Amino acid sequence: MKSITAAVLTAYEQPLEIRQYPALTAAGPGECVVRIEMAGICGTDVHLWLGQLPIPLPVIMGHETVGRIELLGEGLHKDFRGETLAVGDRVVWASSITCGECYYCRVVRQPTRCVNRKAYGISYCCDIDPHLRGGYAEQIHLRAGTSLFKIPDAVPTEAVVGSGCALMTAIHGLERCPVSWGDSVVVQGTGPVGLAAIAVAKQSGAGKIIAIGGPAHRIAMAQAFGADVVVDIAAVPTPEARRELVLAETGGFGADLVVECVGYPGAVNEGIELPRDGGKYLVLGQYANAGNISFNPHIITRKQLTIFGSWAFEARHVDKALRMLEIPHWQHLFAEEITARFPLEEANTALDTVRNWRAGKTVLIP
Amino acid sequence: MKSITAAVLTAYEQPLEIRQYPALTAAGPGECVVRIEMAGICGTDVHLWLGQLPIPLPVIMGHETVGRIELLGEGLHKDFRGETLAVGDRVVWASSITCGECYYCRVVRQPTRCVNRKAYGISYCCDIDPHLRGGYAEQIHLRAGTSLFKIPDAVPTEAVVGSGCALMTAIHGLERCPVSWGDSVVVQGTGPVGLAAIAVAKQSGAGKIIAIGGPAHRIAMAQAFGADVVVDIAAVPTPEARRELVLAETGGFGADLVVECVGYPGAVNEGIELPRDGGKYLVLGQYANAGNISFNPHIITRKQLTIFGSWAFEARHVDKALRMLEIPHWQHLFAEEITARFPLEEANTALDTVRNWRAGKTVLIP
Amino acid sequence: MKSITAAVLTAYEQPLEIRQYPALTAAGPGECVVRIEMAGICGTDVHLWLGQLPIPLPVIMGHETVGRIELLGEGLHKDFRGETLAVGDRVVWASSITCGECYYCRVVRQPTRCVNRKAYGISYCCDIDPHLRGGYAEQIHLRAGTSLFKIPDAVPTEAVVGSGCALMTAIHGLERCPVSWGDSVVVQGTGPVGLAAIAVAKQSGAGKIIAIGGPAHRIAMAQAFGADVVVDIAAVPTPEARRELVLAETGGFGADLVVECVGYPGAVNEGIELPRDGGKYLVLGQYANAGNISFNPHIITRKQLTIFGSWAFEARHVDKALRMLEIPHWQHLFAEEITARFPLEEANTALDTVRNWRAGKTVLIP
Amino acid sequence: MKSITAAVLTAYEQPLEIRQYPALTAAGPGECVVRIEMAGICGTDVHLWLGQLPIPLPVIMGHETVGRIELLGEGLHKDFRGETLAVGDRVVWASSITCGECYYCRVVRQPTRCVNRKAYGISYCCDIDPHLRGGYAEQIHLRAGTSLFKIPDAVPTEAVVGSGCALMTAIHGLERCPVSWGDSVVVQGTGPVGLAAIAVAKQSGAGKIIAIGGPAHRIAMAQAFGADVVVDIAAVPTPEARRELVLAETGGFGADLVVECVGYPGAVNEGIELPRDGGKYLVLGQYANAGNISFNPHIITRKQLTIFGSWAFEARHVDKALRMLEIPHWQHLFAEEITARFPLEEANTALDTVRNWRAGKTVLIP
Repeated sequence: MKSITAAVLTAYEQPLEIRQYPALTAAGPGECVVRIEMAGICGTDVHLWLGQLPIPLPVIMGHETVGRIELLGEGLHKDFRGETLAVGDRVVWASSITCGECYYCRVVRQPTRCVNRKAYGISYCCDIDPHLRGGYAEQIHLRAGTSLFKIPDAVPTEAVVGSGCALMTAIHGLERCPVSWGDSVVVQGTGPVGLAAIAVAKQSGAGKIIAIGGPAHRIAMAQAFGADVVVDIAAVPTPEARRELVLAETGGFGADLVVECVGYPGAVNEGIELPRDGGKYLVLGQYANAGNISFNPHIITRKQLTIFGSWAFEARHVDKALRMLEIPHWQHLFAEEITARFPLEEANTALDTVRNWRAGKTVLIP
Repeated sequence: MKSITAAVLTAYEQPLEIRQYPALTAAGPGECVVRIEMAGICGTDVHLWLGQLPIPLPVIMGHETVGRIELLGEGLHKDFRGETLAVGDRVVWASSITCGECYYCRVVRQPTRCVNRKAYGISYCCDIDPHLRGGYAEQIHLRAGTSLFKIPDAVPTEAVVGSGCALMTAIHGLERCPVSWGDSVVVQGTGPVGLAAIAVAKQSGAGKIIAIGGPAHRIAMAQAFGADVVVDIAAVPTPEARRELVLAETGGFGADLVVECVGYPGAVNEGIELPRDGGKYLVLGQYANAGNISFNPHIITRKQLTIFGSWAFEARHVDKALRMLEIPHWQHLFAEEITARFPLEEANTALDTVRNWRAGKTVLIP
Repeated sequence: MKSITAAVLTAYEQPLEIRQYPALTAAGPGECVVRIEMAGICGTDVHLWLGQLPIPLPVIMGHETVGRIELLGEGLHKDFRGETLAVGDRVVWASSITCGECYYCRVVRQPTRCVNRKAYGISYCCDIDPHLRGGYAEQIHLRAGTSLFKIPDAVPTEAVVGSGCALMTAIHGLERCPVSWGDSVVVQGTGPVGLAAIAVAKQSGAGKIIAIGGPAHRIAMAQAFGADVVVDIAAVPTPEARRELVLAETGGFGADLVVECVGYPGAVNEGIELPRDGGKYLVLGQYANAGNISFNPHIITRKQLTIFGSWAFEARHVDKALRMLEIPHWQHLFAEEITARFPLEEANTALDTVRNWRAGKTVLIP
Repeated sequence: MKSITAAVLTAYEQPLEIRQYPALTAAGPGECVVRIEMAGICGTDVHLWLGQLPIPLPVIMGHETVGRIELLGEGLHKDFRGETLAVGDRVVWASSITCGECYYCRVVRQPTRCVNRKAYGISYCCDIDPHLRGGYAEQIHLRAGTSLFKIPDAVPTEAVVGSGCALMTAIHGLERCPVSWGDSVVVQGTGPVGLAAIAVAKQSGAGKIIAIGGPAHRIAMAQAFGADVVVDIAAVPTPEARRELVLAETGGFGADLVVECVGYPGAVNEGIELPRDGGKYLVLGQYANAGNISFNPHIITRKQLTIFGSWAFEARHVDKALRMLEIPHWQHLFAEEITARFPLEEANTALDTVRNWRAGKTVLIP
């Protein structure tokens, strides 16, 4: 029996270990085994590596993964959209499974807050059989109940992994806090979530899109994605000066909608001043608990704001992401986000590249 | 010609001066002169007296006022609701006039943020003719364009002044952030805005209503207004203990909707932890800029909240308030909020009573 | 082994047959066997009996049922709300099961339109094992995946069966087309759905509620449920005259919201003229296909209406219905709707009572 | 004093008369006199000519007009958007004035249903001074309170008149019934309103757009505007066959949103079957009362639809239309809609061209 290579997080802030696991040779009812073609490295993986979220070590990270079906368990005939599944099909899947039974799933319909939610690449200890539940590996075992999506032939793997969980996160956020056509939109941050937010805003018919970010290669991408104005935080280093620029671009009032995609908590102090009165602010990037800021709640009342939080995404949003990636324009842009590719054995170099913002999107090719 | 007595704020933190002004004997086109019957003292008046908001001194305060029409200017035949107006009619009016022409009035329809908004009892220097533009006086001069409301005979003056601007503020806030029937609701604060929020939530079919406040006489009023559970901040002095109580009352998840009606900025730190995930938080009480708090924006994302600010109210909300006051239940409760009445000459004692929370609602009877 | 009595629809417009089936003595994984205490007869059952909907005969009708758990299958430990289930518990259940996998369940979240939806008392041929899948029987077999609800002790069986599927239907409809507090509401029809619509509108803080219906005993019930004005169709026999009455009660403009709960298609022609311009019309009663009307679509554009259809209900709405029934006021009113009780053997008399509108709510007590 | 030429509707179904009126040489406070450059002929003008709407004859028709300011009355300094106005400025204006004071303007905020609404080119008898209140003339007199818009230099007159009131109507309709990005959209009709609906849907990020219409030159325009599929009613003459095509293009379910832009009442019977269950139907074209259809209201309930009516537009929508016309793509397409230009003296030929659908958009150039 062949063995399967995986890059394993065994201790925080320590190099991933390259380990071998027994190859998966069977799939139970509703389960699925996938041969991995490409795994994205998400900024969240860096936070996991730093120990900033509680997870059960050791873990095979990787929650942005595309592969081909090797084994289909009994009863698993169709994907989330009703497409027939077969061995050899190229697939992606929602990284989380929700229970469908708890208060958040059933009664108040907030499944992203399911009390029993578990995510591939994050929540599964790889000491426990079947071990392979993350993307940094040659194979992955998907539980019954996973929302699978057969990828249309026209959509390249690079586009799916390049857009990663950022696109689904932006789709969910901008579903909760929708862009109306013609709205002026400020996007704080030009990382993967920021670029995805620009894309979804553009796709929704946004008027002027103003992005705030850096460095230079991200500025160029923000422009390619459709930002009409990009404010380089290196060139305009103070929040006050950036606010003046935003006001100048929005008739002196501020934007209809502002999307925070930075993650650094201080960004919220800058961002909350950027919508016009009666405008909307989507806090999308504060996924990790990075501590407190000094904040004036009077601004919420006085500016008559609506502020939205949005956590992760549902399987529905993977469907929407794939539909967006069927549009050649977005397909190319998201595929081109990938500027660094590494084999599984160089997972540590890959993680380091993400940690130091040295590339666009970085991927592993097992 | 008779003279008119008014209580005038001439310097911050100094006693109001009782002054005489020439009686108003004419009303221009669209204008109106009203003989004041009762003027409420709002908590905001204390903030004005303390100099916490920029206003043009000297000012006749008072923006919660009921009186009878003495003079009707040319062309002023009907009130906001189309009712015919006549000399002698008992009226109330929206305390602010909006321009109807600015970006906020016209394009994005946020008239409470009108750039030219002016409020009776706040924005008019009484050195300038016609002097009488506040409620702490025997007469008031209302500009053309003021939204007047003839008070139905069945609605006593006490109910209108007792509900004051608090009811309209709560109606506006809970229009932006609506209660669905059956929602569990936490109201932070049991002052006039908190009581009004309880009333509007109750009227909207709220399920369990939990109020957090004090002191004892306010606790009793919160219960009378319809709070199912009242948490006395004196008896439960820590935010952590109060949160435990709220969780225990809401299945361990938190409330569907939380309304902040405190004003003290630290209340936002307590309140933001009280909605369930995916719930709503209405920040209604942070009307004055009372400084910064240490705040964790990660909570917004993780709890997937929607947070609403709401500023003042529109003339439409006076209409809704009066319709609510036609219901005897609310009429009696709001009228009974008034527990202290003073003549105009004792305006300083009245203001002091409000400042020290010594009464329910305090009013002046010129 | 004991046998179980059931009233069976074997041929349209023919008397139900009283048949015996083998008692259920086992429940498979996730399944449940319930000893029936009371079964409501819904107006839809009359339509089924008349052959107006395609169903697989023979059928044991009855989709408004309360009973006690006799057998709990493996793995069935908790109800929809997470309450622990035990043999002997009094329960109700959502009459339909949705697949959770089709386009309507997953992608566009319209589970009431699930393409695989099956309803107890309607969709199951009782020739097929386990036979007992309807309420007109001593026992019922509930499939795995049924949304069960343990009934709180304080809520009597009469209230649950008395409110029937009408309350859940009204809750769903008025969730899609919500009442804002203070809204004027017209309810067309004073049968079970109309009474339930009055109740939900009242609970949501409706202003004036105007009901249009009959006969006399229904008029009295509509008043008891909270209608401020009831227009008796016998006393005011023309739509034109009824419209005049509605306009007179609504300032000449029409109501903010109109709910059709009649079923007779011509009611739509009357109802569409009753909202004010820019108002809302909920078409809730056209559950059966009762043919065409002569209709002017110009009214939709000119009156700038929003018209809502609403089909059946989801399990979530059973939860909301039970929460409403915990309020003593509604509990009593819905329980008092039941004015005719029959044993299973008199199912034909019971059905006849419903068909001829001779009672309030009619129930079977096996 | 020079005289002003106008084409006047003096009797229904009779040729317009070319008449002379005294030139306007003064503008009162807030008023404005405009020298007309181009006037669009709307399909509604044909309905007016046929006598299908009650208007006060004689009338100068024309409610889609662009011109240059000749005289500015006292106090009229700024346009709706706050731009400074000067003699010589090229302007367009909202064709209706609302009173701002009635129940529909104030209380329920449905200003398009203002009870005192009057429209240029429709509601003003030209026997009454100042006579010139329609677009089929060399000059027009605009009342105080008219919502004027200075046209940006980059936006050609052809684009503004080419888009006409159709674009504003579509913007209003699709504001009431919004497109979410990715939605499949069916547009019934490829006249000016249909093309504008395609444009607004496209601008809002619609997924697949399916247009149903004709004749050939309209089919080509619908494709140019962004329809992915155009069903030619000549080639596919039955509603049943067209429905099959729509279902085939939408996974067998129907579209997320259907917009009726036909006007012929029978179109509603075809259109209501085209949304998926739980979908939306916007009835935008039934502006005139063209009689009854045989209609089955059960469809509304069973398909769980939401149906929207939308009447005309507000001044806000002119602002949005101009913002859309600043985008070169739409500017060119709408300008190219104009394929027939006539001098004022040939107004009858122009009207005839519109009546017989012989051109794209037809305009008068005084």
